Amino acid sequence: MTETLDTLPTPALVLDRAVLRRNLARMSRKVLDAGIDLRPHLKTCKSATIGRQATAPHSGAITVSTLAEARYFAHAGFRDILYGVGIVPSKLPEVAALRRQGTDLHVVTDNTVVAGEIVRHAEASGETFSVFIEIDSGGGRAGLQPGSAAIVEVGRTLRRSNRVSIAGVMTHAGHSYHARSVAEVADVAETERQTVVGAAKLLREAGLPCPRVSAGSTPTATHARSYEGLTEVRPGVYVFMDLDQAGIGACAMGDIAVSVLASVIGHYPHRNQALIDAGALALSKDISAQEFMPDAGYGTLKGFEGLSVQALSQEHGFVAAKGAFPYAALPIGTRVRVLPNHVCITAAGHDRYHVVDSEESDGVTVLDVYDRVNGW
Amino acid sequence: MTETLDTLPTPALVLDRAVLRRNLARMSRKVLDAGIDLRPHLKTCKSATIGRQATAPHSGAITVSTLAEARYFAHAGFRDILYGVGIVPSKLPEVAALRRQGTDLHVVTDNTVVAGEIVRHAEASGETFSVFIEIDSGGGRAGLQPGSAAIVEVGRTLRRSNRVSIAGVMTHAGHSYHARSVAEVADVAETERQTVVGAAKLLREAGLPCPRVSAGSTPTATHARSYEGLTEVRPGVYVFMDLDQAGIGACAMGDIAVSVLASVIGHYPHRNQALIDAGALALSKDISAQEFMPDAGYGTLKGFEGLSVQALSQEHGFVAAKGAFPYAALPIGTRVRVLPNHVCITAAGHDRYHVVDSEESDGVTVLDVYDRVNGW
Repeated sequence: MTETLDTLPTPALVLDRAVLRRNLARMSRKVLDAGIDLRPHLKTCKSATIGRQATAPHSGAITVSTLAEARYFAHAGFRDILYGVGIVPSKLPEVAALRRQGTDLHVVTDNTVVAGEIVRHAEASGETFSVFIEIDSGGGRAGLQPGSAAIVEVGRTLRRSNRVSIAGVMTHAGHSYHARSVAEVADVAETERQTVVGAAKLLREAGLPCPRVSAGSTPTATHARSYEGLTEVRPGVYVFMDLDQAGIGACAMGDIAVSVLASVIGHYPHRNQALIDAGALALSKDISAQEFMPDAGYGTLKGFEGLSVQALSQEHGFVAAKGAFPYAALPIGTRVRVLPNHVCITAAGHDRYHVVDSEESDGVTVLDVYDRVNGW
Repeated sequence: MTETLDTLPTPALVLDRAVLRRNLARMSRKVLDAGIDLRPHLKTCKSATIGRQATAPHSGAITVSTLAEARYFAHAGFRDILYGVGIVPSKLPEVAALRRQGTDLHVVTDNTVVAGEIVRHAEASGETFSVFIEIDSGGGRAGLQPGSAAIVEVGRTLRRSNRVSIAGVMTHAGHSYHARSVAEVADVAETERQTVVGAAKLLREAGLPCPRVSAGSTPTATHARSYEGLTEVRPGVYVFMDLDQAGIGACAMGDIAVSVLASVIGHYPHRNQALIDAGALALSKDISAQEFMPDAGYGTLKGFEGLSVQALSQEHGFVAAKGAFPYAALPIGTRVRVLPNHVCITAAGHDRYHVVDSEESDGVTVLDVYDRVNGW
């Protein structure tokens, strides 16, 4: 049976393929123009179908955030995968197993002790590893401080074994999500670039190899003034975009490709609200977009100006209106589409995308279903 | 191979069976003493194994929050299931299908239009339905206002078809989660009880049947002064408990049965922090507990006073210390257990429980794996 947005069980994750394609093309063009590689962070989409589309004009390299993603994408044929979360020794056997099966799976560290453990494991097991050294370009999450002696120290430690190669240096300017203007994003992008290019220089001056110089978030990849010295960028959320990205100017509202389909399940005129059947599990409790879009709530209703999800319980969403609630336009049972506050987290509550197309089709017929890999 | 908390891939959801059993026994005793039925809300555990344990001393009736849970628990042999989120007409065919297969699946409404649709659907299809009328006892989510004429109106509408039965009245005092003391919880519980007993009285005085009178959250079921007139309570989170419940005094810290196992993946002495490999997807972005436990963050570290997860990105948790960070006790690779801020939402990021037992076993050997039903 052909499903449509009027027949799908709710809540459900909906992907507009036309918007996705535009988002993919825009970023690809930018990165191709810069003459570098795109290694998209597939933690956002967790979908092999989308990963193949995103990498088609590029080398096929990707980034993932879990070993479950690494297994899934390796199985789907991806051969150059960066697992972007700091490695711990207990995960090395699984990394080695995937490498043995033909996937060049790179790991990340910012720590000399871990670098030593990788070397020890490689020598003891006969396995090989490929390691990115992570640098903190101001985001304050993982990474070595720019210019610190530890950068070369980690590099030298890794090279104690011929079984371990330095894949390069990488950074992620997560603070670009909090920049207050496009100009400020561009400044963060420039610091990100200089930080990681500087780290590569340190390694090379110490006689160590540094083939890859990897940076990039969606905002910085979008607004960077220069890519000089970088070999690749790793944006993730650009494939779908969300209210958070719209809030910081990284996209327009029309660039948001994913929404959560929900049904109106109750009317509460005494408090000017309605309830929908998408709650904390279908939308997530992420409120990132509220930093720049105070009314974003947990998502806004596509096509209904001023309507947003202002509170959540597990399976209930509280929809509030800025003016009088348009009950006549939204009788119980009506389908609405909630634009996600932070799409990476919202999408993770769902195991598949129901694919529509607002350009080549009527926009409501479900043309395809893409799977996702959740969990660890 | 026997897994232990030292060998499990991280992040992973861990359940202490001994604590679970104590929590189940405590609530069962209370409800048996009150002489009423326990219809646990299994949206928290989403596990048939736990559901069977929770209902063993009672009738076997349960509550669920999604049709996916209804299908799963029906398949597991549960025969009396309340789907506790306001029904919409498009979901009636699936409800009917489960009822036809022998499950007494009850639905909920607070709306005359929906009641009319249920009647219309029953008459048109020849199916039967059983409906709870929802009352708002002050939580301000779903439900008709206490004493309103609409209560009897919905009841009369349902009885227009002999194929539709009134299962009873139900309410959920969600605002008990925001009460500032045990006495205040007891006050909320009393209002909850009077509200739903009052609604039952209205129906009965109008000559309508009202076999079930259903109330209860974990705090109100725990601290109610009276259960008079109720036939059942529907607590959910009591099976696991969490920092939120500890914060409002519904449990002690030792009653928290679930934790997220994570590995330390980085040390950042310049900001007195470490990173773990449990982020927004493994812990959730729910911050309910912060209302009464401002330092709870996104979870606190079991066995480490003053350590909590103060920020999250998708797969990174930022662990901060109140005093000097105990790096020596937590080298990279160390396993830690994060107590959940709000366990219903945290658990929903995982597809299984790794079961340990702190009383009958060493507390670290994984003795069993329980599945969960996620999604819709």
